[in-house]
Amino acid sequence: MSQENRHPLDDIFHPGSVAIVGASASGPPEAGWVARLLRFGYSGRIYPVNPRATEISGLKAYPSVRDIPDAVDFAIFNVPARLTPQVMQDCAAKRVKVVHIFTAGFSETGKEEAKRLEASVAAIARSGKVRVIGPNCMGIYYPAGGLTFNPTFAREPGKVAFVSQTGAGATRFVFLANDRGVHFSKVISYGNALDLDAPDFLDYLADDDETGIIGCYIEGVKDGRRFLSAVKKCLSSKPVIIMKAGLTESGAGAAASHTASLAGSVSVWDAFFKQTGVIRVESLEEMADVDLAWLRISCPKGRRVGIVGRGGGIGVIATDTCEHAGLKVPPFLPETRKQLEEIIPEAGATVRNPVETAQSVSSTADFYGRGLKIVAADPQIDFIITHIALDIYGGRQAAMREQLLKAAQALITTVPTLPKPLAVVLYAGEHLETVSAVFEARDQLLKAGIAVYPTIEAAARAVSQLIRYNEFSRRSG
Amino acid sequence: MSQENRHPLDDIFHPGSVAIVGASASGPPEAGWVARLLRFGYSGRIYPVNPRATEISGLKAYPSVRDIPDAVDFAIFNVPARLTPQVMQDCAAKRVKVVHIFTAGFSETGKEEAKRLEASVAAIARSGKVRVIGPNCMGIYYPAGGLTFNPTFAREPGKVAFVSQTGAGATRFVFLANDRGVHFSKVISYGNALDLDAPDFLDYLADDDETGIIGCYIEGVKDGRRFLSAVKKCLSSKPVIIMKAGLTESGAGAAASHTASLAGSVSVWDAFFKQTGVIRVESLEEMADVDLAWLRISCPKGRRVGIVGRGGGIGVIATDTCEHAGLKVPPFLPETRKQLEEIIPEAGATVRNPVETAQSVSSTADFYGRGLKIVAADPQIDFIITHIALDIYGGRQAAMREQLLKAAQALITTVPTLPKPLAVVLYAGEHLETVSAVFEARDQLLKAGIAVYPTIEAAARAVSQLIRYNEFSRRSG
Repeated sequence: MSQENRHPLDDIFHPGSVAIVGASASGPPEAGWVARLLRFGYSGRIYPVNPRATEISGLKAYPSVRDIPDAVDFAIFNVPARLTPQVMQDCAAKRVKVVHIFTAGFSETGKEEAKRLEASVAAIARSGKVRVIGPNCMGIYYPAGGLTFNPTFAREPGKVAFVSQTGAGATRFVFLANDRGVHFSKVISYGNALDLDAPDFLDYLADDDETGIIGCYIEGVKDGRRFLSAVKKCLSSKPVIIMKAGLTESGAGAAASHTASLAGSVSVWDAFFKQTGVIRVESLEEMADVDLAWLRISCPKGRRVGIVGRGGGIGVIATDTCEHAGLKVPPFLPETRKQLEEIIPEAGATVRNPVETAQSVSSTADFYGRGLKIVAADPQIDFIITHIALDIYGGRQAAMREQLLKAAQALITTVPTLPKPLAVVLYAGEHLETVSAVFEARDQLLKAGIAVYPTIEAAARAVSQLIRYNEFSRRSG
Repeated sequence: MSQENRHPLDDIFHPGSVAIVGASASGPPEAGWVARLLRFGYSGRIYPVNPRATEISGLKAYPSVRDIPDAVDFAIFNVPARLTPQVMQDCAAKRVKVVHIFTAGFSETGKEEAKRLEASVAAIARSGKVRVIGPNCMGIYYPAGGLTFNPTFAREPGKVAFVSQTGAGATRFVFLANDRGVHFSKVISYGNALDLDAPDFLDYLADDDETGIIGCYIEGVKDGRRFLSAVKKCLSSKPVIIMKAGLTESGAGAAASHTASLAGSVSVWDAFFKQTGVIRVESLEEMADVDLAWLRISCPKGRRVGIVGRGGGIGVIATDTCEHAGLKVPPFLPETRKQLEEIIPEAGATVRNPVETAQSVSSTADFYGRGLKIVAADPQIDFIITHIALDIYGGRQAAMREQLLKAAQALITTVPTLPKPLAVVLYAGEHLETVSAVFEARDQLLKAGIAVYPTIEAAARAVSQLIRYNEFSRRSG
């Protein structure tokens, strides 16, 4: 990339060198920023800065940023808040392009002294032309470039970006997504946004070829017009999912105290979601569910779902849940029911929709081979949700695991042959044996490119969001 | 108990002998009804009935019920539907008091022939004075009497009763409850309710000293007046929780096909819940959560909650979640905040409410000892929710488990000394290492009598339901 075409934010994701100011010389080595980057495979130069150390994690340490002999593109501040003005001055002198202030204790405390400190750091950065992420945030996770704030995040890059005003929430979200087989292009936790703010990151991600879908956790927006404009730019080429926190009375107070944010009014945000077509989610779990749907499920042609799984009452509950999520569960055609009855040996298993597979987990695998084709062929339905509730198969025997894995294999063989999309629900209950078996089956299915959800509600809501987004895009475009 | 005072349903829970008709001579021994009762410690006489076997699970088998030499109080039918009239005739001849028809394939299929079969079985039972549970259901779980439809359910009895129109759902519910440390007085899965129906069981449980709280999963009610009257009788002495399924358009169709139920209208059920004060839940998970709250949390004096846990954004989300559940999260008094600031070493940790514990799991344990007392003393709040999100502590190292267990021990020591109720949330994420550590800590806390929930939402909703129920009870006198 030539210097002229370089977006200022490219320095964040492609630094040739990183200084860790306040690199930790004590504590477990895996806990420090230096070790995180080393372990995660960052291939640029790393400069630990710590006046009381000569070496950290095998790298030479420097007393200050000014003492580093080479150029520094990116610096991470892990120093007490009161030291940040001095470190920022050092960075300005060293012409560091961008810094991430991990340190907290600024405007979010609500204290005048801390607000003044944040303003003075901002002024030094501005005059020194240093761009800033933070303070009070986790910074960058960019697996393709070996950057991370947690070395146990997936190394594999993907198409999902996440822009987050919460750091702990960003950590949670990456794990939730990784555990669904969802991988990331770029994740930015930006905290108090002293300089770079959500619109800057969104603007960058709109043009980012590595990013196919963008999620945001937002507590407050400083410049509504800029935010709206950046979101619209993204939407012209990719879906945007937003979780807006702090919209209750108590929540707004908590947001002010967390990131010094003004949470805004419910009606303004309602209008924002309605007008833009941004996918609105109520939790980070739901955001990960929608990402998974976008990655693994081709959007159904309509809202009519065929439900396949054991348990009559559980089927009734599943049906209510789908309808609450904005889907329909119409009865199958008589011809479909007749064909299903022929392959389900058990009396009492319903075939109306939901269809009950036979009683054991092993016969579930047998059913998938023939039954899913019959269900998928019914013109009354647009897509399928299969669910296995491992918890209800009584006993928590080891045999369950084997049979569940057999059922997963049957899905892996069958799903690609079906003419309609399918989401799998593996419900684990809250017992370690069933959870462990379900996670193993889940991981095999995800690896095969099949979307797996922990509950019917999660699957139904995610697919419904996908359908809604596509409907909106068709109408507006 | 003298014969005169004996409630007819006592024969269900206290049979001196049980015949298993269609006892399985093949298949894994733990799968059959005979082995279930043997393994579960039923101490009465068990008579396997199977014309093609002489011995099952070490017990002499009989060709028919008529051939059993002694009296039979209770019989379980595990035979094909077409054989049930003959077996019912045998039971009538043998003066069996009550039977459980596990067999499905009756009116729930919607087929005329199957409906006629059900009617004929009902007629034989009526004229022979045999009471019937089912068909198409799991029957009885009565741990105090050694009766169960699943041998892996907890053997320990408790105060919770559950009356269920779903069998698989009843299995799910018992496991969900057991995994929350909730134990049962009596569970009845009654399916199509050819004879004994929800009102019969409720009427019995209203007077049952072993039962302190009653849950119901209902798809449809045949006699609304009888149902209402039985519910009111229960409510005069104990809370009733109902999950009403099939209230969506598609769900009503599914309910008809599952248990031949008429689901009823939304407005009628809305009025029912509003007028009676029955606790309305939307899922079996929520029912287990409310049972846990009722067992382990003394009802708070008001709706104001203090939230304690790590993660600023996660605290904001928690606050929104509590308010959505009908709670309030008011700011602590300045005095409380000052005291909290003194014991939290970290800059940037909020103390307004939510209060952030320090950054590591181990310092969470340290915080509990002093911090919870300070929070509990604040007159602005009525109860506390503490949450530990193990997923956000980065890395999924073994040390996490130890630190989490230390935090759990700190709660076990501290919670009994607090002047206000407290619910613990342990959020596990969806990774086996964190789930496994969380389950271990959860079980230790539950054993110590502390309520543990998997999510903030679950805790907030359950406590809110408890408060609403108590408010209603006070109003109605």
